[in-house]
Amino acid sequence: MSTAIVETARAARLASVSLQSVTAEQKNEALLKIKQVLSERREEIFKANEEDKKIAEELVKQGKLSSSLFKRLDVCQGDKFDTILSGVSDIAELPDPTKKVTLATKLDEGLDLYRITVPVGVLLTIFEARPEVVVNISCLALKSGNAVILKGGKEATHTNAALARVIQDALASLPFKDIPKEAVQIVETREDINALLDLDRYIDLVVPRGSNSLVKFIQNNTRIPVLGHADGICSVYIDKDADIEKAKKIVVDSKTNYTAACNSAETLLVNEALLQNGEFSKVAKVLLDAGVTLKCEENVLNFIKSVSDISDDDKQKKLQPAVEEDFYTEFLDLIMAVKTVSNVDDAVVHINEHGSKHTDAIVTEDEKTADYFMTRVDAAGCYWNASTRFADGFRYGFGAEVGVSTNKTHARGPVGLEGLVIYKYKLFGHGQGAGDYGSGKKQYKHETIDPSNYII
Amino acid sequence: MSTAIVETARAARLASVSLQSVTAEQKNEALLKIKQVLSERREEIFKANEEDKKIAEELVKQGKLSSSLFKRLDVCQGDKFDTILSGVSDIAELPDPTKKVTLATKLDEGLDLYRITVPVGVLLTIFEARPEVVVNISCLALKSGNAVILKGGKEATHTNAALARVIQDALASLPFKDIPKEAVQIVETREDINALLDLDRYIDLVVPRGSNSLVKFIQNNTRIPVLGHADGICSVYIDKDADIEKAKKIVVDSKTNYTAACNSAETLLVNEALLQNGEFSKVAKVLLDAGVTLKCEENVLNFIKSVSDISDDDKQKKLQPAVEEDFYTEFLDLIMAVKTVSNVDDAVVHINEHGSKHTDAIVTEDEKTADYFMTRVDAAGCYWNASTRFADGFRYGFGAEVGVSTNKTHARGPVGLEGLVIYKYKLFGHGQGAGDYGSGKKQYKHETIDPSNYII
Repeated sequence: MSTAIVETARAARLASVSLQSVTAEQKNEALLKIKQVLSERREEIFKANEEDKKIAEELVKQGKLSSSLFKRLDVCQGDKFDTILSGVSDIAELPDPTKKVTLATKLDEGLDLYRITVPVGVLLTIFEARPEVVVNISCLALKSGNAVILKGGKEATHTNAALARVIQDALASLPFKDIPKEAVQIVETREDINALLDLDRYIDLVVPRGSNSLVKFIQNNTRIPVLGHADGICSVYIDKDADIEKAKKIVVDSKTNYTAACNSAETLLVNEALLQNGEFSKVAKVLLDAGVTLKCEENVLNFIKSVSDISDDDKQKKLQPAVEEDFYTEFLDLIMAVKTVSNVDDAVVHINEHGSKHTDAIVTEDEKTADYFMTRVDAAGCYWNASTRFADGFRYGFGAEVGVSTNKTHARGPVGLEGLVIYKYKLFGHGQGAGDYGSGKKQYKHETIDPSNYII
Repeated sequence: MSTAIVETARAARLASVSLQSVTAEQKNEALLKIKQVLSERREEIFKANEEDKKIAEELVKQGKLSSSLFKRLDVCQGDKFDTILSGVSDIAELPDPTKKVTLATKLDEGLDLYRITVPVGVLLTIFEARPEVVVNISCLALKSGNAVILKGGKEATHTNAALARVIQDALASLPFKDIPKEAVQIVETREDINALLDLDRYIDLVVPRGSNSLVKFIQNNTRIPVLGHADGICSVYIDKDADIEKAKKIVVDSKTNYTAACNSAETLLVNEALLQNGEFSKVAKVLLDAGVTLKCEENVLNFIKSVSDISDDDKQKKLQPAVEEDFYTEFLDLIMAVKTVSNVDDAVVHINEHGSKHTDAIVTEDEKTADYFMTRVDAAGCYWNASTRFADGFRYGFGAEVGVSTNKTHARGPVGLEGLVIYKYKLFGHGQGAGDYGSGKKQYKHETIDPSNYII
């Protein structure tokens, strides 16, 4: 491993220690300074972005880069840069997630225990084409008191480097010293990342932002906890007691509102009663009308083929037989895998086996059925009569989104700044030893203390 | 991988799903039933324990097993078994950690979001000789709604199997079906463990209980999150502004109260001013008087040798030169590594580099120095004028201890039942889609809801 990369990680660790002492006001001052310097040096960033775009344009011509990737690379276009800038002040306005007292107990007279939220420490973020992630993640990290090491996509090398340089200069110009410029660092090569993924003594949390394959690679190649999700295989289950109008609305929104999102639905489970009574035809029709290709198990296929008010054209072009693999697939497109289940329990079993623990919805008017589904489906989000597309930090009202996690520990679902903090216990004594307590000696009091007694 | 072990893991996963529906009352009923059946079948367990002890006795004679390990194996001795039984009802009496509402937001009229604590899912616990862990961890798992797979030390094979069998029989005899007997399962071989550590699709959290090497092996051989700690390298720093009487008390308690514990201090950092003014001699003397061997850096060694009221015998027998490795060593014995630092910042740097993020204490009368230390030391517990030995779930008032974690995510420090839960988001809608909201459309309200509106 190169000494340089170990030094980068070590510098981040040292920065993270000094960040522990920073006040909420200082963090916000730093964010506003970043905004100011980014704004002042807009031309420098645009110039770097033009360099990246020149190279990328050539790649697009050669068919080596998609035009959508090219578009994401561009920070000069329209009001894109201003949006990035206002994102910085938005983060400054969020409440500070650190220094919250989450437990306060008097163990004994003069022996007070407080549990306080603190930054996790050092973050490593690996992301793909969008250069604005440099700004966004740096600001989220600083706001939560964390140091961060960033690695962006190689298409945006110049832009990322310029953004990081400007942020570092902004930090270096602050009138206080506890946010050193090493709080935000950037690395450029894949080798650097491989080395950093091994440095669990310096790095506390990896936050990947990008494709399924990127996240999977990271999850499989580090002992450091990873906050994120690889797949987003979300399902909607239409129960026998569903209101079909709600079902139509929810399924179409879940599938078509933004197909590239992880919270889009990929699987549709239908209670077989709705094929027997014909009601499912209405849902199938709106999906096909919305341009969705349905990959159906045989009974569903036969049912839809028999529906008279679905056009032959749709039947020919948008219906396909499903294979088992389809129910493990994140299509990220106007494609949905469809199958019937005999009851809510079958739906739960299917989702727990095939889903990705992201977000799953039930459509039903029966409260008990909804409760059963929402209790037993093992997912970060369990929705009743609502689109899976609501699974998002901004929609949840967090004001920011660090990522969406399908983990079962630490942070789950859309993660706001709270996902970047942990806690420590502070014990305030007067010389006590554990040997003072026990049978025939002093006894613990374990009384709850008013948390506001804790003075930071 | 054997099909049997995959089936064990899968059965645990299915049990964990059905456990989601269990009420707090049912969980307590299950615990009390376990206590009752354990008590009724005490003889069966004792018989199994005798078998284990017979084999172990032979190993002790051959020098292949330590007598302390043999002692830990014994569940028949004195009131040991009654203590195990009362541990079960103690856990039943703890508050239920699940179904707590930790966030409640009205996204819009008729679109309510709740964040609810839920069990993590499936636990895997690997432990060493003490068979009572079978009972303790099974009860902690059930109380928090988790399924658990246990693997104990081979010395206790018969006892562990008997305890697990009795627990399973108790669960099978419950008048309700949502706690299947597969909620508690036991496996016996190292191969089983290696296979289970690969089954991250079924297992959510590994809770090792045992030696440093066991925990390290697990941390290095699984992608599943591990709750625990390998090392417990705790330090005490005596500041220049320390009250020396407090320092004496705290250092001796931290080191000698129970040397085998992870929260015992291994390193003593002394402000060099206390060598200059001679005050450190009092601390050195009480440590040596308490039988502690001091492995000291040269200046400390020379200082102690010059102290007139320390006996020549102690100077000869209990003083040793320290090597760098000593400051990374968990002695678990009456041995302490000692060095000077020039100020609190040096102490922080030393601890953050050498410590294990477990528990570290400062002795000082200066509040600002204490605050600096407690803010900047990166450890689960940062103590001011108190012994490191207070780092314990029972002493913290949690009523139970799942383990002590030196992780930086999920749970840190002594972990009670809270460490075995995570949360999910439940969204209650009336047919809304994300496409209904946005510029020129409906706006999110993001109003806080009274959490008690949530009806489980």
